[in-house]
Amino acid sequence: MIQTDICIIGAGPVALFAVFEAGLLKMRCHLVDALPQIGGQLSEIYPQKPIYDIPGYPAIKAQELIDKQMEQIKPFSPTFTLGERVDALEKQTDGSYVVSTSENTKIHCQVIVVAGGLGCFEPRKPDVEGIFDFEKKGVDYMVKNPEIYREKKLVIAGGGDSALDWTIYLSDIAQEITLVHRSDSFRGAPDSADKVYELAKKGKINLLLSHNLLGVQGNGSLSHVKLVNKVKEEFLIEADHFIPLYGLTPKLGPIANWGLNIDKNAIAVNTFDYSTNIERIYAIGDINTYPGKLKLILCGYHEAALMMQSAFKYVYPDQKLSFKYTTVNGVNIF
Amino acid sequence: MIQTDICIIGAGPVALFAVFEAGLLKMRCHLVDALPQIGGQLSEIYPQKPIYDIPGYPAIKAQELIDKQMEQIKPFSPTFTLGERVDALEKQTDGSYVVSTSENTKIHCQVIVVAGGLGCFEPRKPDVEGIFDFEKKGVDYMVKNPEIYREKKLVIAGGGDSALDWTIYLSDIAQEITLVHRSDSFRGAPDSADKVYELAKKGKINLLLSHNLLGVQGNGSLSHVKLVNKVKEEFLIEADHFIPLYGLTPKLGPIANWGLNIDKNAIAVNTFDYSTNIERIYAIGDINTYPGKLKLILCGYHEAALMMQSAFKYVYPDQKLSFKYTTVNGVNIF
Ligand SMILES: Cc1cc2nc3c(=O)[nH]c(=O)nc-3n(C[C@H](O)[C@H](O)[C@H](O)COP(=O)(O)OP(=O)(O)OC[C@H]3O[C@@H](n4cnc5c(N)ncnc54)[C@H](O)[C@@H]3O)c2cc1C
Ligand SMILES: Cc1cc2nc3c(=O)[nH]c(=O)nc-3n(C[C@H](O)[C@H](O)[C@H](O)COP(=O)(O)OP(=O)(O)OC[C@H]3O[C@@H](n4cnc5c(N)ncnc54)[C@H](O)[C@@H]3O)c2cc1C
Repeated sequence: MIQTDICIIGAGPVALFAVFEAGLLKMRCHLVDALPQIGGQLSEIYPQKPIYDIPGYPAIKAQELIDKQMEQIKPFSPTFTLGERVDALEKQTDGSYVVSTSENTKIHCQVIVVAGGLGCFEPRKPDVEGIFDFEKKGVDYMVKNPEIYREKKLVIAGGGDSALDWTIYLSDIAQEITLVHRSDSFRGAPDSADKVYELAKKGKINLLLSHNLLGVQGNGSLSHVKLVNKVKEEFLIEADHFIPLYGLTPKLGPIANWGLNIDKNAIAVNTFDYSTNIERIYAIGDINTYPGKLKLILCGYHEAALMMQSAFKYVYPDQKLSFKYTTVNGVNIF
Repeated sequence: MIQTDICIIGAGPVALFAVFEAGLLKMRCHLVDALPQIGGQLSEIYPQKPIYDIPGYPAIKAQELIDKQMEQIKPFSPTFTLGERVDALEKQTDGSYVVSTSENTKIHCQVIVVAGGLGCFEPRKPDVEGIFDFEKKGVDYMVKNPEIYREKKLVIAGGGDSALDWTIYLSDIAQEITLVHRSDSFRGAPDSADKVYELAKKGKINLLLSHNLLGVQGNGSLSHVKLVNKVKEEFLIEADHFIPLYGLTPKLGPIANWGLNIDKNAIAVNTFDYSTNIERIYAIGDINTYPGKLKLILCGYHEAALMMQSAFKYVYPDQKLSFKYTTVNGVNIF
């Protein structure tokens, strides 16, 4: 069981700043995100796009903001569980909580902060015969650890950035890659598409445009993907892994089942400490709602600051909180 | 009369970010600050100190943050009146306001934003005979425009950074400078003190340590400053200007007289749009108070964002506000 002061659900920009504000008050954080990487919407949806309304940054690329925030919280050594969804919260008799994930990781904490954004990013699953039978047996909807594909035969499907980027990255690792796309051109970045065409020309990958997926087959674990081409010829490709990358959509998901007051698909909070209707559970960032709420990164930062002042009493019930400027007090490593 | 959509009282970090949020909604701002420079507490009190809790900046010097914010609002061309205190607000029959300053500058606007921090920075005035008679007639408590001292005889008093920095700066401009300090060493930065000693050694300034001020004299306008040395000898120095630089302290000042609800020396606001008890008047940053309030720069940024959404209806009564991400919509110059 992981032990921490504060368990934060989500690892987007607001969660990361919450780690900083907690750290100033000497509270430790563990973060859980369903995505395999840190950064929430910024890293998943628009890493290379500039944001213009981060105060003090006339422009900053989304991924760069996340990188800066990671540097900012380094002194406080937060810990992470990535690629796992938080499914359940269990209240203990002493008021503390045990949080558990889709992979049964358990985290014991005094305070829970829901910083879940628009919800859990869930993969869009293609409508392909037999696909559910082979989940975790060769069918993967996200690339969590590229190393598991070393010297394997892969079929990747999709025409967006994820499909292109992973095809390029894995072409050095896998034994064989087939990239399947139903249309004859890609939606992803033109220079990534060019790289994929180049890899196909050199024979480093197998590129099947204008092909459709029909099904997956195997005996216990995946062995073949079934396809059909433009002229309706069906055929099988050998595959240890089938990786359909059709994008992720956020879903409120398990958060809806924890007894929190939900309003407009978000968690209702008050504005003096961003606490929810359940004691010791706070909600900050895109996932919360209150009169005047704006789903902006900078607003989540403010919410994180106020919230941590309030959470202090659960972590240090015997201490009085004293408020000090960072300029005066500095940032003390732990 | 200056015409603007929004008049902001104060030009600290929160006021500057308010200009940005207003600009996104195509609202123009005019800012007034009693200090001769932009930047509020950051530029006046701790320009060279690093701040650690600006989200996305592991550390940033206070003045650098102000500079970055100025760059960020450049597309929106805000205008400034500096070195003047806002003294009065006058409601017009159509609901708009006329704001007037200590120098009788008048600004017509639809909305007023009080971003006055801890209040107006007022100079500490030394207890020197006759000093009040020569205010604006040779006695200056702040350097607003260094050019007025060209080829003049100056007496500067004080031992902190302001006194040192202005002595150094004005030594190239004035005809003659005498720096008077009651102690035999300086409180200001050691390298500034070294420069002052160097100037004195070269005969470029007149340095009088361990001297006390007795009075100022003149006939209509200032002509002499009267001093006393360690061995109690009194003497006069010729001076066109006497500039005592004994620091500034913030005072709520005129803000207290506008009928706003004041609580703990701050303006009470609600948290859905940071409006005050008077319609069309908002208060953001250190000057406001509400349950949970933290006097932090990052909190003021959030308040500015929500506040401007609410102010929109007074500037564009016939338009519907639509909320767009900067990443999607960009920043449009006007
Ligand atoms: C195209 C685009 C442009 C944008 N431009 C701007 C802009 O210019 N300025 C601006 O301020 N904002 C912008 N935004 C909005 C901004 O991205 C969000 O406000 C911000 O991401 C919210 O941060 P967050 O930390 O609250 O949540 P998110 O970034 O959404 O992160 C939440 C994380 O929580 C995880 N999660 C949710 N539920 C669970 C669970 N049960 N278990 C485990 N993990 C879970 C999710 O997987 C996700 O990674 C933009 C958004 C988009 C899509
Ligand atoms: C030493 C020190 C260290 C600090 N460290 C930090 C830190 O690490 N992190 C952090 O977040 N905060 C810190 N702060 C606090 C931070 O400086 C304030 O929160 C911030 O300055 C508030 O910004 P503001 O724009 O609301 O007001 P201010 O910066 O106070 O600016 C207000 C301006 O309004 C002007 N004004 C007031 N009344 C009038 C009037 N009637 N007419 C004309 N002008 C008027 C004043 O002259 C002033 O320039 C620190 C403060 C100090 C003193």
